[in-house]
Amino acid sequence: MNDAALIDQLIALIGPQAVLRDAADLEPYLQEWRGNYRGTAGVVVRPGSTAEVAAVVKLCAGRGIGIVPQGGNTGMVGGAVAEAGQIILATDRLTAIRELDAEGDHITVEAGVVLAQVQAAAEAADRLFPLSLGAEGSCRIGGNLSTNAGGTAVLRYGSMRNLVLGLEVVLPDGRVWDGLRALRKDNTGYDLKQIFIGAEGTLGVITAAVLKLFPRPRSVAAALVAVPDPAAAVALFGRARAEAGGAVTGVELMPRLAIDFALRHVPGVIDPLAEPHPWYVLLELSSTAADAPLAQQLESILAHALEAGLVDDAVIAASEAQRRTFWHLREAIVEGQRHEGGSIKHDIAVPVARVPAFLERATAAVEAAIPGARVVPFGHLGDGNIHFNLNQPEGADRAAFMGRGAEINHRVHDIVAAMGGSISAEHGVGLLKRDEVAERKPAIEIELMRRIKQAIDPAGIMNPGKVVRA
Amino acid sequence: MNDAALIDQLIALIGPQAVLRDAADLEPYLQEWRGNYRGTAGVVVRPGSTAEVAAVVKLCAGRGIGIVPQGGNTGMVGGAVAEAGQIILATDRLTAIRELDAEGDHITVEAGVVLAQVQAAAEAADRLFPLSLGAEGSCRIGGNLSTNAGGTAVLRYGSMRNLVLGLEVVLPDGRVWDGLRALRKDNTGYDLKQIFIGAEGTLGVITAAVLKLFPRPRSVAAALVAVPDPAAAVALFGRARAEAGGAVTGVELMPRLAIDFALRHVPGVIDPLAEPHPWYVLLELSSTAADAPLAQQLESILAHALEAGLVDDAVIAASEAQRRTFWHLREAIVEGQRHEGGSIKHDIAVPVARVPAFLERATAAVEAAIPGARVVPFGHLGDGNIHFNLNQPEGADRAAFMGRGAEINHRVHDIVAAMGGSISAEHGVGLLKRDEVAERKPAIEIELMRRIKQAIDPAGIMNPGKVVRA
Repeated sequence: MNDAALIDQLIALIGPQAVLRDAADLEPYLQEWRGNYRGTAGVVVRPGSTAEVAAVVKLCAGRGIGIVPQGGNTGMVGGAVAEAGQIILATDRLTAIRELDAEGDHITVEAGVVLAQVQAAAEAADRLFPLSLGAEGSCRIGGNLSTNAGGTAVLRYGSMRNLVLGLEVVLPDGRVWDGLRALRKDNTGYDLKQIFIGAEGTLGVITAAVLKLFPRPRSVAAALVAVPDPAAAVALFGRARAEAGGAVTGVELMPRLAIDFALRHVPGVIDPLAEPHPWYVLLELSSTAADAPLAQQLESILAHALEAGLVDDAVIAASEAQRRTFWHLREAIVEGQRHEGGSIKHDIAVPVARVPAFLERATAAVEAAIPGARVVPFGHLGDGNIHFNLNQPEGADRAAFMGRGAEINHRVHDIVAAMGGSISAEHGVGLLKRDEVAERKPAIEIELMRRIKQAIDPAGIMNPGKVVRA
Repeated sequence: MNDAALIDQLIALIGPQAVLRDAADLEPYLQEWRGNYRGTAGVVVRPGSTAEVAAVVKLCAGRGIGIVPQGGNTGMVGGAVAEAGQIILATDRLTAIRELDAEGDHITVEAGVVLAQVQAAAEAADRLFPLSLGAEGSCRIGGNLSTNAGGTAVLRYGSMRNLVLGLEVVLPDGRVWDGLRALRKDNTGYDLKQIFIGAEGTLGVITAAVLKLFPRPRSVAAALVAVPDPAAAVALFGRARAEAGGAVTGVELMPRLAIDFALRHVPGVIDPLAEPHPWYVLLELSSTAADAPLAQQLESILAHALEAGLVDDAVIAASEAQRRTFWHLREAIVEGQRHEGGSIKHDIAVPVARVPAFLERATAAVEAAIPGARVVPFGHLGDGNIHFNLNQPEGADRAAFMGRGAEINHRVHDIVAAMGGSISAEHGVGLLKRDEVAERKPAIEIELMRRIKQAIDPAGIMNPGKVVRA
């Protein structure tokens, strides 16, 4: 960015401290944490209010300068990467919790509030904000909204989209749409907030939101269950739903190899079962009732599943501390994988009943393509959402393995498509999947997306090139 | 419709039986059930498949003929009224349940399936489809989707929008968008289905949907609670949530006058309490656990509320039959009102905590405007959604009273607006509220709605004139 006049104007609008240009200052905004992308933008602006966001957007709109909104920069698909000539609009100074209404069960937060802070504020008011995911300590609400974030509580509470009552958005021409309503029902026209949620910043900058709060679970019980195969895991899930209904709030699938990686590389990880088993399910029940007999229910579910041959072994958490170790094990998988060389990843969803068939076909396909590849598929079985990752064969050349990523992605995604699935269940499109999404979706859908982009951002300045080509 | 060539073409596309032109055949499609609107269209088409819908829309698009989609014709806002020169596209032959996947907890239905049939199909598979509202015996799923229907289960399950996994839509040019996905997570671009849900047929014709199913509640307990005033009702709701959390699934508010109207005019209505009281709450707990101790929980909630002076009297349903009589009482209010002369109605929502203040101000305003008007505000307290209706003073002239409807609406809606509320919580916009919505919403929001309408239906043939002026 060599446009000195623009810089002067930005400084005039939001102050010199809020306009970053030094390489060291820019660094954390340019580097994508997985290492797949590196931005080349020369300026980061950090507006401190909605009015400042609006002023910056208006200035850029007048000059046709592309704006890349950025939250915690924890995305997986290059959605927050900015090219030279574009500016990064960081939300990290929009950190006010504007209101918490415990009686009304809602909280109004600015886009830059870190997810864990929203969770903590809710808990302090004896409420639950249910969105929960690995990056919760650093991802920001604006990013969660813009990517329609998922995570481990979707089975019961839905994705981020389902947790929103109202939005405040700076539109691509710099005007502010104040849609910060705290209403449970409102049918006064098109539900505009839905357009901005999940749009990855391509239609405007979300600056604040009214989010739903929920009664806090007062009872919880979890089991780590060894199962012979994914089909047994799906059947176990079905039995749990039949016996415990809506109390089934967590169903995570893990293969043995994922456990091995976590045990090998991540401190504090414990395998609570005596023998190794091919597959595991972390099954959790919860209830807002204080004295719900969930542990007994879990025992009953597991006893019936054992009789039916669906379960090899299981342990029910005897304490809150032990329950946390189960989740630590689950959450350590990503870190464990990172120490086992290159990893080719997929974030797919299929209807839950098709997960076993998907795993069988996809595993066979990638093992045929790369003999010795170590397949480590894990994730949110209850949503049909599997992170189908494969690590390089032991001792293989990392670069050569990673060089086959696109080919492997294609093979796996062909199987997903044939099963009516999604090639981006929770991580979004960004740059990484834009062209593949365009190839795989019906042309009519891409056309509708383009028409919406054109209708809301006719000048194409909002997060240019992301999600859908202009 | 005197265009004989068009009629011939329609008949060629979908058969003579499916193109209605006789006055007697047209009648049920032209008359709005509340008597506020009467259509003047000369033709109703009843396509029997998505392909036939597409063929009809394509034909009309080519000739610039307006299409008014119509489901059960149970709407409240004139959204399905068609003028001369337009055609009504009735969904009442699109009645297939295409698939029910109990394991995957979803059902695929065509737009013309009656809501009660979806509920029954779910129940037969030991599942719940939670949408529940007065017209459920005759309203159709396409209408529920197009109006984002609400009702009595929103507190726990959300509005119709929250119950949808996928849609099939015939676009305004006659092409079919097949978005019938059965995925719990899918972030591969803008979530197009959100645009069509709640659009009241102005952006395309929804022909089928994949809907979520849920575990069926196995325990339920309900109480009819007499409370001194709406503030006590809100406080009781708060206490119930504090004690029973997510088990609180129904919270309906009723004034004594509503009970009197129901008792006077509707067979089978019983007042289970010995004395009359100023206000009532129908409070229901439910759980998917088979043996949840909900009646005890309800007793405990009521005992604490009694101590706190929030409750005057209460009765807990001793049987399923008695529980049904509580709901019969609640549902009889609308019918009861109809026998008490003219009724000026409002379908408003405010944040839950503001319901008492709203009721106080709005009641004072309308009683000052029309002395003797009988205010009967009832509805979904848990959602902040009140049907603020007033009946004419006893013995007053009906026409004179109804003639003041617009003025009264304006007074009440001014109070709603001042409280950050919605002037159409669950019934939608249609013709009835289009111009008032345009006046009251921020101009930027109406502009965004127009841009979306223009982007998806540039020729303006889909349900012309509804929701937002072109």
